[in-house]
Amino acid sequence: MNPELHFITLATEDLDAARAFYRDGLGWEPLLDVPGEIIFFQVAPGLSLGFFDAEKFAEDLNHRVAITRVSGVTLSHNVGSREAVATTIDRLASLGVTVLKAPQEGAFGGIYHGHVRDPNGIVWEIAHNPGWRIDEAGNVLFG
Amino acid sequence: MNPELHFITLATEDLDAARAFYRDGLGWEPLLDVPGEIIFFQVAPGLSLGFFDAEKFAEDLNHRVAITRVSGVTLSHNVGSREAVATTIDRLASLGVTVLKAPQEGAFGGIYHGHVRDPNGIVWEIAHNPGWRIDEAGNVLFG
Repeated sequence: MNPELHFITLATEDLDAARAFYRDGLGWEPLLDVPGEIIFFQVAPGLSLGFFDAEKFAEDLNHRVAITRVSGVTLSHNVGSREAVATTIDRLASLGVTVLKAPQEGAFGGIYHGHVRDPNGIVWEIAHNPGWRIDEAGNVLFG
Repeated sequence: MNPELHFITLATEDLDAARAFYRDGLGWEPLLDVPGEIIFFQVAPGLSLGFFDAEKFAEDLNHRVAITRVSGVTLSHNVGSREAVATTIDRLASLGVTVLKAPQEGAFGGIYHGHVRDPNGIVWEIAHNPGWRIDEAGNVLFG
């Protein structure tokens, strides 16, 4: 496949809270961390997820986009078992993260999942999804 | 590397407009298209980008998240040259897409870029970024 997406950048009003959630809560190592400006994490082959100070995000777009908070976005992290869904959500909850939906059967695709909200308003789905897999070439396969 | 992100799901109030932008504007083939519900595109190895009808998005979270529009999100598509930045933005503009920032030098990292807005409010950066590359293992390298 031909990757089409190379960066996801999210405006954030609290870069330190984002750093704590991803680095300390999820245990991810930053790819690049520029305090007060931006933090990048690599989240897939060739793909970076960046948290960009909200004021600088607006500047970069010549203030043509009104940014208050991120909304309407869910990012999903698939894990290997139903137990791992619960373990991951419990770890985040112990750090004070808001749990939006406790682990349970999902309505779609035979998944088992729960949702939390990161400090920036982004919803994270933690899911066990036995009907989903990635082949050796990186192709996503359903069912 | 260990991929951490498997799905990006964006609430959308107009699934047909999203389909037209991505399928017809960017030329991407849907991975799964369920009219009135959700459309998925594969955008990186193992990574799907989904557009989820806003009402169903809210239902899936037990209406615990107030969704109006997506905001504060930029997705970036890197292309091979400055000319390709202009060509891509011109093609989108010819379909009626709003150009937020005409192709120009960026403030960060030596990039050349421009920005458009998809029908859902998502900002797309189209960039030529000579300081960024992906090695054979999928690692992102800066500089």
